[in-house]
Amino acid sequence: MNYPIIFYILGCVLKFEGAFLMLPALVGILYREATVYPYLVMAGICLLIGQILTWKKPKSSALYTRDGFVSVALSWIVMSIFGALPFVLTGDIPFFVDALFETVSGFTTTGASILTDVEALSHASLFWRSFTHWIGGMGVLVFIMAILPLMGGSTMNLMKAESPGPSVSKLVPHVKDTAKILYSIYIAITICEVFLLCIFGMPLFDSLTITFGTVGTGGFGIKNDSMGSYSPALQNIVTIFMILSGVNYTAYFYLVCGKIKEAFRLEEVRWYFIIILASAGIIAVNTRHMYPALEETLRHAFFQVGSIITTTGYATTDFDLWPEMSKCILVILMFIGACAGSTGGGIKVSRLVILFKTIRKELSLIIHPREIRKIRMDGRVVEHETVRSTNVFLVTYFAILLISTLLVSVDEFDFTTNFTGVLSALNNIGPGLAKVGPTLNFSIYSPFSKLVLIFDMLAGRLELFPLLIIFMPSTWKRK
Amino acid sequence: MNYPIIFYILGCVLKFEGAFLMLPALVGILYREATVYPYLVMAGICLLIGQILTWKKPKSSALYTRDGFVSVALSWIVMSIFGALPFVLTGDIPFFVDALFETVSGFTTTGASILTDVEALSHASLFWRSFTHWIGGMGVLVFIMAILPLMGGSTMNLMKAESPGPSVSKLVPHVKDTAKILYSIYIAITICEVFLLCIFGMPLFDSLTITFGTVGTGGFGIKNDSMGSYSPALQNIVTIFMILSGVNYTAYFYLVCGKIKEAFRLEEVRWYFIIILASAGIIAVNTRHMYPALEETLRHAFFQVGSIITTTGYATTDFDLWPEMSKCILVILMFIGACAGSTGGGIKVSRLVILFKTIRKELSLIIHPREIRKIRMDGRVVEHETVRSTNVFLVTYFAILLISTLLVSVDEFDFTTNFTGVLSALNNIGPGLAKVGPTLNFSIYSPFSKLVLIFDMLAGRLELFPLLIIFMPSTWKRK
Repeated sequence: MNYPIIFYILGCVLKFEGAFLMLPALVGILYREATVYPYLVMAGICLLIGQILTWKKPKSSALYTRDGFVSVALSWIVMSIFGALPFVLTGDIPFFVDALFETVSGFTTTGASILTDVEALSHASLFWRSFTHWIGGMGVLVFIMAILPLMGGSTMNLMKAESPGPSVSKLVPHVKDTAKILYSIYIAITICEVFLLCIFGMPLFDSLTITFGTVGTGGFGIKNDSMGSYSPALQNIVTIFMILSGVNYTAYFYLVCGKIKEAFRLEEVRWYFIIILASAGIIAVNTRHMYPALEETLRHAFFQVGSIITTTGYATTDFDLWPEMSKCILVILMFIGACAGSTGGGIKVSRLVILFKTIRKELSLIIHPREIRKIRMDGRVVEHETVRSTNVFLVTYFAILLISTLLVSVDEFDFTTNFTGVLSALNNIGPGLAKVGPTLNFSIYSPFSKLVLIFDMLAGRLELFPLLIIFMPSTWKRK
Repeated sequence: MNYPIIFYILGCVLKFEGAFLMLPALVGILYREATVYPYLVMAGICLLIGQILTWKKPKSSALYTRDGFVSVALSWIVMSIFGALPFVLTGDIPFFVDALFETVSGFTTTGASILTDVEALSHASLFWRSFTHWIGGMGVLVFIMAILPLMGGSTMNLMKAESPGPSVSKLVPHVKDTAKILYSIYIAITICEVFLLCIFGMPLFDSLTITFGTVGTGGFGIKNDSMGSYSPALQNIVTIFMILSGVNYTAYFYLVCGKIKEAFRLEEVRWYFIIILASAGIIAVNTRHMYPALEETLRHAFFQVGSIITTTGYATTDFDLWPEMSKCILVILMFIGACAGSTGGGIKVSRLVILFKTIRKELSLIIHPREIRKIRMDGRVVEHETVRSTNVFLVTYFAILLISTLLVSVDEFDFTTNFTGVLSALNNIGPGLAKVGPTLNFSIYSPFSKLVLIFDMLAGRLELFPLLIIFMPSTWKRK
């Protein structure tokens, strides 16, 4: 293990976090809140420790897959621990495990909360809480850009741990350029949404926080009823931006490059839209009797479907009161998740497309045993290694899901609550059903269960393996 | 497709079913019931159609994998349809979909019932209902023995579709001998259990039906409270035989051959017993406050764990009233299932052992990328093909589980009911939780949902693929 470089990376991460912590401090100054000082103090501490860790450039810049995975996992953990402290210091969330849950939920863009009264928070804490979504949304791409000069060719290993889901095509040959392009698209979408929300009458503070939650597919609201009290027009804008944030960024890259045909040919993106339309359509028919107007039915159906499939987690209505069929569709959407290469979580549409093609191939092999059939995606052959790792991913995923549900069940809540709660954490969604439904929160769970859910959120965001290997003893063994 | 041989196989199946139908008729005569005639008539019809279909030996005896899979799937469907008719004709279960559900549940050794009052059934129907478990338990091994003389070397294809789970080692070189040995062990266990139950005071009729349900890992009871009203000694005997029936028959084969060391070295069997002991231990601690005596707590814990992991489905207590932790353990045991090569259903312990070794290998590959590591089981290398098909199996399994839960949710029951109901059908267990718990039954579901569950029971019993390929259009295409 190359410890010097891992410490260096952690130092960079802390320096960035220190800089980011200035923003909520600024918000505190604008709103004349006493919470300014804890944020300033924590910003100072982060900058100081970051500076100490990055004092000396490490001699060897060789970063193997293992080192990459470990440094990514540790970055998220360190970021979350330091990010949680302001909540404790300001007294907004006095208990540390709760503050850590809220911060991990933020950085992993989950959006699950332990707060029973969000509106009681100071503006600085509300801003920081939503801002963690925005930082987490694009993952450590920003950190990769900062660390890049140091590592040369081996950055792909960091990308491997960070990039969500199997990607069939790489955008551009150089990782650094890819990161820059993705980051630009991300900022562009953010600015568009803030602008549109402001035009349609949302206050600037609300627009910023809601946008952070949307483009990061996080879902922390600043109102107790999430998005319920905003006007229909604002809800529809958020629906559109949630769905756009769940699209594979490769599509935007093609659009930016003028390759419009290629963008619309992406199999994953097409399936993503087909799933959204079909789900929202069925739910609209199924819930038609619950709302007076067709417009309202469609608005709620599309909002909730967009919110769940992109793993954002906002809500405009209490979908826990919906008929069982609609709720079951939402549970299946929780499994599916957004596109790979987006800021969303879940199993990812591309993985499911590959898996269904694998099943079809298996059946076809029984019928025609001598046939040689390759799985293709976007016209290209999917490598055997991708298919294998997709299968292993799913198996690991279900193992974590079941074991976590068992661990959380010590709190004696019903199966639906535990199962959808864990599913929601593991897929970085936010709300579940029953006792963790959209109008409720995770404060009911014991500290032990909260730690299990924190593990699930991190595991889900880091695509399972980076987090798992830091628990393997052989990772830390010296050769 | 070799249609002549498929029809010939179906004819053999029907001739056997005709012979088997004589037994409930005999029971009817002994108890002087009017239900004798429908059973005699159906026996006659089965024998007649069977005779017609097997009139001429097919010229070509070539049986490809596809033909094998199709004939196995069709055998189970035809057997179930003809087996359901006596229930309708006797008026014991007048509605055909209900009768079909009950018969499929019997032949697939599920044990899920749509009957609200089991004790109202005639003795002949009660006997036939339990006897379907015994027939289904050992699968079409008996039919293979009958069809063997016809097919020569290619019987392995039929075995491939029928044998439950991945088997690392074959018992003996010749399929015919394997079938004979398995069948002998099966009969020996049956006789032992009937004998023991009778000695401890159970009436012969009860002993026979309960034993059919135990060794076939079925679970149809003949009392409304399943096994609750029998004496503790009888319950413990059933516990032991349930657990023995879930053991990989390879272990018994080794024992019969005097290879005692090899029998105890089987990794799957060891894990199977570890899981049972651990689960029953935790549940006993968790439910200790619910029962007056420690003996009673342990008896119920071991009975329910043995019943669920072997996918039998008997119950001595209403485990739906247990604490959430214990219920969650039972749900996880539902997923796990018995050993491969036993009469039980579920994912199978050996598959899970292979899957966990795959995850460990994946993690190890991240840490040591250049390491070449093979997955081993019982000291032998597991072939790549087995690992691959295990992964594909699990993926298909979860796809069917989620889609079925969605389809069943049209009936508007809660998520726990639908999810555990489908899980119970797919894993051939019997009871689920909540509205399909051990003291309740599947009569609440609509005919449409019952058909979905019938599909799940058959898919689970036939290890998914044989049933799925009969729905593929290309299976039926002429080249």
